[in-house]
Amino acid sequence: MSLMEKYIGALNNLNFGDMYNNDFFLTWEKTRDELDAVFTVADALRTLRENNVSSRIFDSGLAISLFRDNSTRTRFSFASASNLLGLEVQDLDEGKSQVAHGETVRETANMISFMADVIGIRDDMYIGKGNAYMHQIVNAVKEGFEDGILEQRPTLVNLQCDIDHPTQTMADTLHVIHEMGGVENLKGKKVAMTWAYSPSYGKPLSVPQGVIGLMTRFGMEVVLAHPEGYEVMEDVEEVAKKNAAASGGSFRKTNNMAEAFEGADIVYPKSWAPFKAMEKRTNLYGAGDFDGIKTLEKELLTQNANHKDWECTEEMMKKTRNGKALYLHCLPADITGVSCKEGEVAGSVFDRYRVPLYKEASFKPYIIAAMIFLSKMKDPQAALAALEAGRRARLMK
Amino acid sequence: MSLMEKYIGALNNLNFGDMYNNDFFLTWEKTRDELDAVFTVADALRTLRENNVSSRIFDSGLAISLFRDNSTRTRFSFASASNLLGLEVQDLDEGKSQVAHGETVRETANMISFMADVIGIRDDMYIGKGNAYMHQIVNAVKEGFEDGILEQRPTLVNLQCDIDHPTQTMADTLHVIHEMGGVENLKGKKVAMTWAYSPSYGKPLSVPQGVIGLMTRFGMEVVLAHPEGYEVMEDVEEVAKKNAAASGGSFRKTNNMAEAFEGADIVYPKSWAPFKAMEKRTNLYGAGDFDGIKTLEKELLTQNANHKDWECTEEMMKKTRNGKALYLHCLPADITGVSCKEGEVAGSVFDRYRVPLYKEASFKPYIIAAMIFLSKMKDPQAALAALEAGRRARLMK
Amino acid sequence: MSLMEKYIGALNNLNFGDMYNNDFFLTWEKTRDELDAVFTVADALRTLRENNVSSRIFDSGLAISLFRDNSTRTRFSFASASNLLGLEVQDLDEGKSQVAHGETVRETANMISFMADVIGIRDDMYIGKGNAYMHQIVNAVKEGFEDGILEQRPTLVNLQCDIDHPTQTMADTLHVIHEMGGVENLKGKKVAMTWAYSPSYGKPLSVPQGVIGLMTRFGMEVVLAHPEGYEVMEDVEEVAKKNAAASGGSFRKTNNMAEAFEGADIVYPKSWAPFKAMEKRTNLYGAGDFDGIKTLEKELLTQNANHKDWECTEEMMKKTRNGKALYLHCLPADITGVSCKEGEVAGSVFDRYRVPLYKEASFKPYIIAAMIFLSKMKDPQAALAALEAGRRARLMK
Repeated sequence: MSLMEKYIGALNNLNFGDMYNNDFFLTWEKTRDELDAVFTVADALRTLRENNVSSRIFDSGLAISLFRDNSTRTRFSFASASNLLGLEVQDLDEGKSQVAHGETVRETANMISFMADVIGIRDDMYIGKGNAYMHQIVNAVKEGFEDGILEQRPTLVNLQCDIDHPTQTMADTLHVIHEMGGVENLKGKKVAMTWAYSPSYGKPLSVPQGVIGLMTRFGMEVVLAHPEGYEVMEDVEEVAKKNAAASGGSFRKTNNMAEAFEGADIVYPKSWAPFKAMEKRTNLYGAGDFDGIKTLEKELLTQNANHKDWECTEEMMKKTRNGKALYLHCLPADITGVSCKEGEVAGSVFDRYRVPLYKEASFKPYIIAAMIFLSKMKDPQAALAALEAGRRARLMK
Repeated sequence: MSLMEKYIGALNNLNFGDMYNNDFFLTWEKTRDELDAVFTVADALRTLRENNVSSRIFDSGLAISLFRDNSTRTRFSFASASNLLGLEVQDLDEGKSQVAHGETVRETANMISFMADVIGIRDDMYIGKGNAYMHQIVNAVKEGFEDGILEQRPTLVNLQCDIDHPTQTMADTLHVIHEMGGVENLKGKKVAMTWAYSPSYGKPLSVPQGVIGLMTRFGMEVVLAHPEGYEVMEDVEEVAKKNAAASGGSFRKTNNMAEAFEGADIVYPKSWAPFKAMEKRTNLYGAGDFDGIKTLEKELLTQNANHKDWECTEEMMKKTRNGKALYLHCLPADITGVSCKEGEVAGSVFDRYRVPLYKEASFKPYIIAAMIFLSKMKDPQAALAALEAGRRARLMK
Repeated sequence: MSLMEKYIGALNNLNFGDMYNNDFFLTWEKTRDELDAVFTVADALRTLRENNVSSRIFDSGLAISLFRDNSTRTRFSFASASNLLGLEVQDLDEGKSQVAHGETVRETANMISFMADVIGIRDDMYIGKGNAYMHQIVNAVKEGFEDGILEQRPTLVNLQCDIDHPTQTMADTLHVIHEMGGVENLKGKKVAMTWAYSPSYGKPLSVPQGVIGLMTRFGMEVVLAHPEGYEVMEDVEEVAKKNAAASGGSFRKTNNMAEAFEGADIVYPKSWAPFKAMEKRTNLYGAGDFDGIKTLEKELLTQNANHKDWECTEEMMKKTRNGKALYLHCLPADITGVSCKEGEVAGSVFDRYRVPLYKEASFKPYIIAAMIFLSKMKDPQAALAALEAGRRARLMK
């Protein structure tokens, strides 16, 4: 039996034609079939690589990366995905300056895209800005393509914005799918997306928002837990509610970590900053009010310190189903007694889950590659079949 | 009919054998046939790409980039061109330190070139230095090649020096050729290369110099217009005169913007700094006289402010042939009311020409690729034919 | 006769099976056969390239570089080697911060390695740290591979540590082999590895240590010469002694430069810092004692200045065999009257040896490529034969 047969079969049952020549902004803008197509292609590409079959669909071409924050993991995931498909990464380093506007964005987007097949952007710092900026870029290159300036339309991959972190949460979910033995087994599983204490502050909201926006698609019982005052974006909570209703699962909130962990199949304890505070910070940055920012930081650290009991301890883990919930984290975690004095997770819990955590991360390059693949291949099933048939070795044997 | 037939036919009528294993410093060091070969190959490579035919002539190899200024556009153009041909860009970041001398240049040039096929340099800040530095590098690697240290001779592509900006002006001209329907239609056309006001100062001279040095090759009526005191390098004016005489066109100067625009087919309004001032600045840098530099900057900004009426307004555009001259700019432009209060061009003029302006820029990667191609392929016609015959897909279909 | 025949024949007589899926830390951890295999494959890869035969064994894949110091030469050598084999370099820029520890290293090593085939590290600043850090990384990725996190095991190439500089000294030695007409001709040759004066201080010990640790493998008469107080790591001297005994050569020390040069076939005069001082500096850095560091620097510069007579002058060169010893240097050298007032070598000596010095450096990319090749190819002889048989052109002809 061929390597690609089962993936091609799965794709044949899915409707994902709109992904061709399209972008990936937010998971909830995609249909379930489209998400399943990404998971399927990610697994297919991994299978090819594990069997030393090249999955280069590009003979040449550039993948532009634009990181508005320092990033090692996402940078390497994007570089790996691009390289896997045959693209060379070219980094656009704008510095960590404020977001550029209007004319400049339109012009820069076109100037860097003459031979760009993909643009990957991470811009998660400022509420209301990151996702909007990605749309500006995409509008500019779409227009450039329609006007005959660009001969190909570069695909956007959202590598993290102020709203969602789709490559992370899709990788998290693909890991869960593998651990649970199939996407169909997610139905009814309890997921605790909970806040956890960290000695730093201002961690992005895109992960908890992305998780409740995505995991509610699969009929799971999703609980969002955090201390009062750590609310996430309301719009995304609404998305989660609707998703849960549509998928036959549930979405609810609690201010009690233990309650969330009770009987959970999956736990994702992770620090984040309150949405309102991040919104305030964005405005302070906009106004150049650096004293205000310092005051806000102080307040947030003080507020955090009131909730040091929000830690994923051994005792907390015992409350989960058979004491063996799958522990998720986007990494790096604040590990009590290891990377900090008091943090998100006990050292012994982290230790026990290290291998699955690293595996969770290992899906990200394939998720990104799958997003690109589905945007670039008109007939992905035929493309997978052709790659296998071609059997060009990735590494000469 | 084959894709490459007409380009191969055009090349067959041109004499450009000296470009093989050679460098590209200044356009006026090349014959008309050689320039036409670059245009032809640029169009051929674009046609291949538009038809999804790979034009990788390298299976592996490095393209070294050395930018002595920040640069997004040129950096991406060079990366695109290199990638198109199969080379990986490796950036040599020397910092923005003063130019290194003698032994160091010779040694560094060899140390980075063991597997380098191309070296692209941008060094336009200091008068008398940039082009000289490129020659030092080229002499070093030629010697290294002859001495058996380097097994291939890296080709230099001048990505902008203190004298010329050949990849820019060749891209500008190829755009004009396309807009005018062929290089033969350039004869007799009036080009206004004019100074324009900008609130910044010290913009490089390489564009106006490059334009008058190149566009006079095609029998055009080239007018260089600027306020008194904004003279460009005299040597290049001499080149322009000789070119015009040889090509059956003309070259003249004026201090009147409106006169230059009168009946023009092509206008290129753009700010630059006076040559004498840049020469002075170079000496001040050499002497480490930073107070002197500050004083000079102040003087230049004051001088600029006297010429705010040098703007490409709607009224000015009306003076051109049928009010519809082709507006050129190397980008980014200082757009009045958009990127600055008062600038080089009115917002409405820029808006109307945005698509052609972006197209103008889109030729640069192909121009660079063509320069490399002609230096590396002993028989470019055969190479183009072989690429088409091979029909390796750039993107798998 | 085929291009690869003699290299394949040579490899057939060597026992180097342990290099497969293995790392390269220190030359003295490798057998003579293994070192000879590296030399042989380096020559074979060079021959392929000189004959325009591609030696890409990778269709895609990443080579991670991690430089804890600024580096142009090593960076370009690593990039060249990686590109030659078909890998794309991805740089991990950790800043020049202190070495990270424990959990962080393990996690980062895995996070960057999902598609990494090679990791090249240069970390030579702190005594007792660089080599140890490389082992941490290797242990982490080996564990990651065994745990099924990584689907391939990245190979480490030591691009310079606190103990050894194997890619440099292997390149130096391959140069000597070519100059002497074969590795078998090294036996009995006298090598003077001597300290030389430099106006800077704190130059790494890895070169002299690497040279005495490697050149004693070939039956040569190796003399280590330096002023009193410039002792290198004792452990490495012990290695050199044992090597010399085993190979039928000799290793001895002297505090007299002239004595070392007397009748030498090869001289390697080069500045370095005393091991004890570097050890002290590492501790001062660890304690954050910056005043102590400044004091130490001053002491070292004063100490250096007492030994300005340790220069490779014409007079000194006359003492060597027939006045014509092969002069080696890892470059850049401190050249008297050129790069400094008083330095390691006289201008006229350096001038006379420039071409061979540059050739010496030209072996480094091939040495690195050979290390990677031998770690990745299970049957290197078959792989070389297949590359030649495939005859894919590196540059289209």
